[in-house]
Amino acid sequence: MPVLYHFPLSSASRFIRLQLLEYKWDVELRQKVPWEYDEGLLRLNPAGELPVLDDAARGVYCGATVISEWLEETHDGAFLLAGTPAERAEIRRLVSWFDSKFTKEVAGPLMAERVIKRFQKGQAVSSDIIRTAIANNHIHFGYFDWLLGQHDWFAGDKMTLADLNAAAHLSVLDYFGDVSWDKYPDVKSWYMKMKSRPSFRPLLADRLIGMAPASHYAELDF
Amino acid sequence: MPVLYHFPLSSASRFIRLQLLEYKWDVELRQKVPWEYDEGLLRLNPAGELPVLDDAARGVYCGATVISEWLEETHDGAFLLAGTPAERAEIRRLVSWFDSKFTKEVAGPLMAERVIKRFQKGQAVSSDIIRTAIANNHIHFGYFDWLLGQHDWFAGDKMTLADLNAAAHLSVLDYFGDVSWDKYPDVKSWYMKMKSRPSFRPLLADRLIGMAPASHYAELDF
Repeated sequence: MPVLYHFPLSSASRFIRLQLLEYKWDVELRQKVPWEYDEGLLRLNPAGELPVLDDAARGVYCGATVISEWLEETHDGAFLLAGTPAERAEIRRLVSWFDSKFTKEVAGPLMAERVIKRFQKGQAVSSDIIRTAIANNHIHFGYFDWLLGQHDWFAGDKMTLADLNAAAHLSVLDYFGDVSWDKYPDVKSWYMKMKSRPSFRPLLADRLIGMAPASHYAELDF
Repeated sequence: MPVLYHFPLSSASRFIRLQLLEYKWDVELRQKVPWEYDEGLLRLNPAGELPVLDDAARGVYCGATVISEWLEETHDGAFLLAGTPAERAEIRRLVSWFDSKFTKEVAGPLMAERVIKRFQKGQAVSSDIIRTAIANNHIHFGYFDWLLGQHDWFAGDKMTLADLNAAAHLSVLDYFGDVSWDKYPDVKSWYMKMKSRPSFRPLLADRLIGMAPASHYAELDF
């Protein structure tokens, strides 16, 4: 059985879990801690980053972009990066929006303050950094709400990799209660659709030891 | 004629300039400054990031990953992302190595200290940050030297997008004289090959006003 090395609250890992579940892959999940030195992980992925998909005879694939593209190229009936080259470019633009801009301005700082510092003793959490990241988040949500007012899904009229990656990122923020859903009705109704998919259920069951999720985290009606 | 919005010392912009020149595209280059607020750029790319390729009737494409994948899908005779799905995964892994890990640990901090702070008055350059980035760089170069000892090019026996992106990143470091080429003979001979390609010449002619490049920057024998 293929093995996915992942961290439950890493959006990159969640993105691939969603894609694998949409395609009904049966994988064994093995949890790793991304900020700890891990010889075994470094042997699989010299970058030391998650997720890593070990598909035995078919090879080892490192990083969400690499895995997602490889799955789209090899999985029979893949449909999450379909369309003309221009439509595929729009999907990739939005996938990369979350991986670069949103991570830099919102998710990265929040994750560092709320999770990593908590597990690395002796580091003080900066409420300034958290405040700035949350202010940035409102600008991002304004843009997402506009996009989802134009069409049902992030990149157009079909669910694509862009929706899976967006949902992966926003679900981590939501775990910490960092989203004001009621201010962004179009994002909220899109997220309700995503949350109701069978592929989403395992993510809603994730719990980080010592850090309970926001009370509405696993609710389909929130 | 298609227009490429770029910044001369941005590795993402250089990556796409190399790819376009390998495919002998005739494009108009328009320079933008990535850290300045720019209404015109935001209209083309809401992320406000470079490069952006405006191919008029065929659309606007934002960001190096999106543009490079789109070119590989649409350019007749494209050869820089060829091979089996596993070979393409290895190319993408190395492209993304530079865009994420290398940028985070080496290129991003160096660019912020050496260039951005210089143009944003009142910010002190941190020699600690520069020293750490250069120490990290030796670890990366050790890995690159090992890779290029296994085969002639980053991802195997043919030149691919991985080489173009690697050369784009390393050429920016080299502009500032931050590379100890003689310590890494396999990287050095690979970089000599890259530098001799016609696609590389325009990059060697780039000059940032007020910041001369290292003396060997444009030399083919260095």
